[in-house]
This record gives sequence, C-alpha cells and structure tokens, in this order.
Amino acid sequence: MISQKYKKMLEGKSVIRQLSEFATERGKAIGYENVFDYSLGNPSVPVPREFTDVMIEMLKEKNPAELHGYSPSLGIPSVRKKIADSLNKRFGMNYTENHIFMTSGAAGAIAHAVRCVSDAGDEILTFAPFFPEYHPYINLSGAVLKVVPPNTEDFQINFTLFEEMLNEKTAAVLINSPNNPSGVVYSEETIVKLCDMLKNKEKEYGHEIFIISDEPYREILFAGVKAPYVSNYYDNTLSCYSYSKSLSLPGERIGYVAVNPACKDSEYLVSMCGQISRGIGHNCPPSIIQLAVAEVVDLTSDMSIYERNMNLIYEKLVELGFTCVKPGGTFYIFPKALEEDAKVFSQKATKYDLILVPGDSFGCSGYFRMAYCIDTEKVERSLAALEKFIKSEYGI
Amino acid sequence: MISQKYKKMLEGKSVIRQLSEFATERGKAIGYENVFDYSLGNPSVPVPREFTDVMIEMLKEKNPAELHGYSPSLGIPSVRKKIADSLNKRFGMNYTENHIFMTSGAAGAIAHAVRCVSDAGDEILTFAPFFPEYHPYINLSGAVLKVVPPNTEDFQINFTLFEEMLNEKTAAVLINSPNNPSGVVYSEETIVKLCDMLKNKEKEYGHEIFIISDEPYREILFAGVKAPYVSNYYDNTLSCYSYSKSLSLPGERIGYVAVNPACKDSEYLVSMCGQISRGIGHNCPPSIIQLAVAEVVDLTSDMSIYERNMNLIYEKLVELGFTCVKPGGTFYIFPKALEEDAKVFSQKATKYDLILVPGDSFGCSGYFRMAYCIDTEKVERSLAALEKFIKSEYGI
Repeated sequence: MISQKYKKMLEGKSVIRQLSEFATERGKAIGYENVFDYSLGNPSVPVPREFTDVMIEMLKEKNPAELHGYSPSLGIPSVRKKIADSLNKRFGMNYTENHIFMTSGAAGAIAHAVRCVSDAGDEILTFAPFFPEYHPYINLSGAVLKVVPPNTEDFQINFTLFEEMLNEKTAAVLINSPNNPSGVVYSEETIVKLCDMLKNKEKEYGHEIFIISDEPYREILFAGVKAPYVSNYYDNTLSCYSYSKSLSLPGERIGYVAVNPACKDSEYLVSMCGQISRGIGHNCPPSIIQLAVAEVVDLTSDMSIYERNMNLIYEKLVELGFTCVKPGGTFYIFPKALEEDAKVFSQKATKYDLILVPGDSFGCSGYFRMAYCIDTEKVERSLAALEKFIKSEYGI
Repeated sequence: MISQKYKKMLEGKSVIRQLSEFATERGKAIGYENVFDYSLGNPSVPVPREFTDVMIEMLKEKNPAELHGYSPSLGIPSVRKKIADSLNKRFGMNYTENHIFMTSGAAGAIAHAVRCVSDAGDEILTFAPFFPEYHPYINLSGAVLKVVPPNTEDFQINFTLFEEMLNEKTAAVLINSPNNPSGVVYSEETIVKLCDMLKNKEKEYGHEIFIISDEPYREILFAGVKAPYVSNYYDNTLSCYSYSKSLSLPGERIGYVAVNPACKDSEYLVSMCGQISRGIGHNCPPSIIQLAVAEVVDLTSDMSIYERNMNLIYEKLVELGFTCVKPGGTFYIFPKALEEDAKVFSQKATKYDLILVPGDSFGCSGYFRMAYCIDTEKVERSLAALEKFIKSEYGI
C-alpha cells in the first residue's frame, strides 16, 4: 500500500503555491511584466561572472571523469577547506575542513543538523514569524517543531513566551536571522540574551541545547546593519548555509553545515552528517558546483538592488500608513495588513495584480510578506498599483 | 544531546573504505598506476562530449538567474517530458512527465520510492548479493530490509527462500538488475516468475506489493544480453534510475523515479515524492545538470571498454580455475574466492597490490567483487599480478 502519511500531505495546498499559480495564469492574460508578483524568494540578480567563467573553464580543461566523479560523502576536501578559511577570516572562527559538511542547500543542511542533535520526540523551538518549510523539515525527521509566538513590536524574540516553552525535551532552537519573512536581523542584544538563557537551561536540564542557525540571508545586509555571527556567542551552534541567495544559485542546490569547533562532540558531528546522508538519499551536492563555488567563496551577487527595492517599498508603505518594521537585510518585508484577516487582504490585492503572501503560514496572522527580489523598474510600477489598491479598498 | 543512533553508526567501518584507504596509501608509496584497485564503482570513461558542449553553451548563452533558478520540486517539466518520451520509445511504455520525479541519483530515487510505498515496520525484501547501502537506505526510512540468501548457481533469484520470506508485512521487493556486485542480468524467465509470484501474493494478502527496480546499470549490457524492462511485466513498479554510470556523472547527482502509469495510485506517487522531499532536505537535482542531461537523454558514455575489461578478467579467472558466473552487464564481476573466508583471500591479495572486495557485505560470503571500471591497460597489467597471487598463495 502507498504511504498514507505522505498521501495525506497532498491535501494541504499552500497559499504561496495558489498565489503563484494565480500569478502565472494572470501573466498569460495580461503579460507577466504587468503582474506584480511578490510571492517567491527566487533571486533576481545574476550569479557573479566569475562563477560562470570558472564553470566554463573546468568544463573545457578538466578531465571529465575526474570533474564529474564521486565527491567524498562529506564533500570535496579542498572545497570544505576554502569555506572554513573564508569563515575564519570573516568571523574570527577556527573551523577546519573537518567542521564543514557540504549539503544540498539550506534545506539539506537543516535536514542533517536536526537529525544530528535530536531523537524522535525531542522538541525543536523556533520563533514566529518563520519559514513554513520548518514544519516538514523538523516533523518528518521525528522531532517536533514548537513555535514561539512573535514579538510583533520589532520581530526580535518574544523572550517571555520562549522561556515558558523551554523544557527538558528541548533539543535545539532553530533561528533564522536575517529573517524570512520579516527581513529583520537579530540584534547583538537579542543573540546575547538568547545564548545566556540557553546556557542556563543547559545547566538546569543537564544536557546540551543546540542552536541551529539557518543563515541563507547572512550576506544580504543593508546599510549600517550588523548581523552577529551566532557561533561567536554560543559554542553548541550548527550554522546552516546556502549559496542560493548570496550567489543566486537556488537551483544548483549547494550549501553546508558548519559545526562550531567548540561545540559538544564537535569531532563526531560532521561524520554523523555523513551517516545521516545514507538514510535520506543525499550524497553531497553536485561536484562541479562544489568546485566552482569554492572559487568564488568570498564573492556575492550584486545585493544593492535588494536594498534599493526595500527602500522604495518601505517608504511607500509608511506613506500609505502601514505599520512596518524596516528590514535590516534579506529581500523580504513583512508589513501589517490593513484588516485583521491578511488572507482577505491578499485576496483583494490580486484585483490590482499585486501578489502578496498572507502571514498566517509564517505563524503571524494579520501580516503579509512581499519578496522584492524583482526588477527595480517593476517595483516602481507596482507602487502605483499598491496605492490604488489601498485607496480604493480602504479609502486611505 | 547528539543523536546516539547516528553516533553509533560511526563505529562500523566499511571494508570497502578500508581497502580504498590502503590503496591510497600504497599508491603514495609505489605510484597509483601500480596499485590494481578494483574496489570502487567510479566510472572511468568520460561523459559524452555533447553533454559538455551543452553545459558550456547554456553557461554562455542563458540568463544566469533563469538557468540557476529554482527547479520545481518535482523536477523541470521539459526535462521530465524528455525522459518520459525516451523511455516510451525504448520500452514501449506510456509515461508522461507526471510519472517522472527527478532525484539526486539512484540513492535519492530509492529514498523516495521506499517512503512512497511503505510505513514504519513494513518489510522490504531484496536478494543477495546486493548493494550494501540498501541497509541504510531502507532501515533509516523506518521500514525493515530483509535479505533473501543468494542463488550462487547463477545469481538469479533463490525463489524457494524468497517464497518462504514473503509475508503480509512485505510492502515491496527491491531488485537490482544488471546487478551490483554480480554483474548478472535477471533473465526474462526470472522476471516473469518473480512477477507471477508477487501477483499471487498481492491477491492472497489483499494489498499491493511494489517492485522497486534499482536500474543504474540498465544501459551497461554486454553482447547478446537482453535486460527485461520490469515495468513491462509488473504494474506496481517504481523504476529508480541514475545517470551516474550510463553518462559517467556520479558526482553530479542526477537520476529519477519513473512510476509505471498502470501502478496502483500512480496519480499520487510523484506528488508524494515531492512531499517526501520536504522532509529529507532534497529539493531536486541541480537545475543546470537536469537541463544538460535532457539534451543527451538517449546517449551513453562509451561502454565498450567495460565489456573488453570484463572479457579479459573473466578469461583469466577461468584459466586460473576460478568458479565465476559470467557478467551480462555492469562493470562488476563476482568470482568465488579460493578459500572459505573471502576477507582473508582479499587480505592476501593486497600483498600483490590487488584490491579485491570480499563479498560478505554484499550478503554473499566466500565471493569477492572486482569493479573493472579502470583503464584496460591497467587491467592487462593486473592479470600478471593476479596470476602471481594465485600461484604463490594457492599453488595453482
């Protein structure tokens, strides 16, 4: 018989998917350039030229049997070394290649990190608003995701509720800063308070509580914003990274887990990731992409466009009277909807060809997400549609 | 606390890994060209030139944000369509793109197929000799792998023992033909008998028993050998394919699950694979590799070298008095060792710089595997070492 567990999952249809389908259909009718699709976090800026050049050079020059040969299951050693060196230089860490496990993007990184530090029934806490795929990432591993309600004041952590939810079954805390969907960057004050609380609880419970730090937006920071590197504050940290956003390579599935060398049992964790891989059918990210990324490990795509887009949208939202925390990074913004039910608000917006994602699935109802990884020219045109929408529907 | 389940897995050290490490060390001492390393199934012939050309062309011509953008979670529709069309043409099937799920190689394909058709505690049967990674593939999914002992006569199926092991908990049967490690291709008679037995048991038990057909060596067939396409004989078949061997792309992690359209619940299975993905951190194989493979879907690397190598080795083995079933495909051969314990036999072989893998981990003690995906010139040189080994150690 087919698996009833996975068949049942087919019943839920994601709101983002429905909106995306609407956008596609509408695009066919009026031209996709006229649909202001803020639904998907697919980077709009190209990968640095250097990446393409090194790919072409390898394809031309290298022995294909070697180039496309099996990668060791933990990743190609020279690639892991370059990543470790780059992190050490930037964040003052002391990673070696033995602390880096190559993965299929951040999804793969989290899949491994969660299995490393939890057993069936353990709890993993995360903070709303949060990326909805955390549900399947965690719950299908056997652990249980628990969501701490949001602090809508500034989208830092709601520490009061967090402390109430911590308990002996808490194996790890999954954080995401810069944050999808809020765009907010956790301040140093937030990180310090979080780490202090966890250190105390580790003592109280007599076991480690790991931080799984989901960092795909680490490089997308706006003027004047600093993002604390979590491992600098907390030993038991596994950093999950993806090049999907910083190098605009989401389709090529490449990222890593970086295990803090000061972490409890750090000498086992990367090898354990290799064992976990055997059960989930992952055998490293593609070899050629590993090798190419290693050559551009200190580069990023041109992120300035995202900041320009953010400023345009943020200013217009404020002008129109929205309550909105200004993003410190990412390509997301998460304003408060103008009526209680953000699903109704988003539905109305589609009449103006604006695709806005209600915040409910991010664990934060009454808000909506805009993913502004689109052309600035289109952002500019969308603002007139936004103004028309608000004035027509809400009389503001 | 770190997961004790995965930490415990670190204790077992694979014999193949140990042999491979010996080969590396020995290679440093005497030159790798002088180590006759038959341990690893890493293809030695290059990918077809057309693949490299199409990769370079896409990198030069395509918009990088599109080229490297997210693939839909089931795979790129045009790629799935080309694969379906190719299979239909070759095997008289009626797949559409909706029956093809793109995966990270055969490992990824099996990870999804197993989860599709089993729940925790269900049994999956396979036939020795078998690929040892089936243990983690199956057992870490929650199902339980049961191994039917080998038919060492010809390495077809031991039907007597198979029938004894079938029971109401049998959710699927995992087969691999052409077979790693034996090189044997299941005959049409074997496939028909297997399918008839399963159809009867399906009726008896009142539920489906799926065949998961692991087919990475499907294209590596020697002169005069025909490999039945399992879906032509059995409706409830999921074919798991990888381009690792046929296109010599093991590092690029690309393959698929093809769901027989006549399969029970076939309309759900590919979408269910998409749901399974969410839990195991897989989000499609790399986009650029999907697109490039689709352009060479009917090509293979030059497989003639493997047949030449097989004939050289097989003839020498027979001449030296080995009992050996002649392979019908793959790049493996699985002779009987000249003493009861193949581990001791393999250990002695290393004195002659011959790296042979004992059959114990393949579920068939007393035999050993040679992976002859190496240069023919090296195969030729190795035969003198083999002869010296046998004459010196066994006086033959």
